[in-house]
Amino acid sequence: MSSPQSSNNTTTGDMFTLENRVFCCYLFWATVLVAKMLLMSLLTAVQRFRYKVFPNQEDLFFKNLEVQFNDPNVERVRRAHRNDMENILPYFIMSLIYISTNPNAVVACNLFRVASVARIIHTLVYAVYPVPQPSRILAFATMLLITFYMAAVVALRTLSFI
Amino acid sequence: MSSPQSSNNTTTGDMFTLENRVFCCYLFWATVLVAKMLLMSLLTAVQRFRYKVFPNQEDLFFKNLEVQFNDPNVERVRRAHRNDMENILPYFIMSLIYISTNPNAVVACNLFRVASVARIIHTLVYAVYPVPQPSRILAFATMLLITFYMAAVVALRTLSFI
Amino acid sequence: MSSPQSSNNTTTGDMFTLENRVFCCYLFWATVLVAKMLLMSLLTAVQRFRYKVFPNQEDLFFKNLEVQFNDPNVERVRRAHRNDMENILPYFIMSLIYISTNPNAVVACNLFRVASVARIIHTLVYAVYPVPQPSRILAFATMLLITFYMAAVVALRTLSFI
Repeated sequence: MSSPQSSNNTTTGDMFTLENRVFCCYLFWATVLVAKMLLMSLLTAVQRFRYKVFPNQEDLFFKNLEVQFNDPNVERVRRAHRNDMENILPYFIMSLIYISTNPNAVVACNLFRVASVARIIHTLVYAVYPVPQPSRILAFATMLLITFYMAAVVALRTLSFI
Repeated sequence: MSSPQSSNNTTTGDMFTLENRVFCCYLFWATVLVAKMLLMSLLTAVQRFRYKVFPNQEDLFFKNLEVQFNDPNVERVRRAHRNDMENILPYFIMSLIYISTNPNAVVACNLFRVASVARIIHTLVYAVYPVPQPSRILAFATMLLITFYMAAVVALRTLSFI
Repeated sequence: MSSPQSSNNTTTGDMFTLENRVFCCYLFWATVLVAKMLLMSLLTAVQRFRYKVFPNQEDLFFKNLEVQFNDPNVERVRRAHRNDMENILPYFIMSLIYISTNPNAVVACNLFRVASVARIIHTLVYAVYPVPQPSRILAFATMLLITFYMAAVVALRTLSFI
């Protein structure tokens, strides 16, 4: 446990407190991404009401509607949302445990910032206003590579516990 | 790291121990929600066997079956399950990191309780026994608003680390 | 917070440091599973290019293509990926918070190892080279049962905070 001589430069203390600025930076940007993901649900709902496309019998809020799937406007937002789950949710865990290795603060904070902004761009070019490739691929690859980098750091550090 | 004078009223100590009753309350209700989510997989399996609807060639446990998608009874459970992933998984991270801000114990514990019970109700009225709206919308909105509230608390607290 | 007499055999200290070998073992295997999940995105991309099946207008990298869904080769990988999200993501949270209960190190580390290897096998027999059942069901059930076991441990330990 935390010895009196522990400092920011060792890995012996607790990293998950508000006194660790890497953790604080994680808190801010993870929160931004959580809010962004939840807004995808609301964006899906907006599309459903705009195009009157509902998947359940009990959701037919307008007369003479039938349940309907495969509307391209709704499905695009749902694909973007699923892509968020596939990438951001593993990133949440990976970047959280990466903090425990006491990474360099400047490196870690900038990784969090770049990855988060990249995913906001991903949503904009995928679900809000589709633009030609490779914009979406680049935004996608940015967080992917950052997550793989963190995975490499953590795996090498803990390899003896295999 | 934890100084000797740290107490429950400061944010300097470690929040993620069994000595913090907010964390213990999180542990209990997060566990309930994890179990609830895993039961969705089993509920999907039950529906697949009941209606003999399987998506893979190697899953055709009965003779004269073909792979089949889009069965409404199976798809309803799968939509409920996907909605769980969209909402509960970000909530797990958001409420976990919210604990690090040392929130008021009564407020935090009750948020965990209400959000968790709301999602159990969401599952019941969506996947188990469909009932008319707005029951599902209200259950959905409850956890959504609680997660947004926690996001606001954490973001305001860590805004300087942007 | 951590009292001076705290040791590895009590639950009073901080479990989430590199000094706790259960946490280190979690770090390694969670990292393996994060990497495995991200590779599913790349495997989906490989299948999309191999069979020239793209879901968005802006992804049509070849001439005379139309957006297309429901290709069985692509959908199989996507089902495996979704199954990962349904099971591994709740497991990440469940096993992380399970560490806070200070479990027996040998038991906990072996649970992490078995669960992780089981999911790698699940991917191989589902998405890479489909083999007859019950191989996939057994791989699926292994992590499911381990997660339920951890849930039972944590829920019983924190039942008074309901």
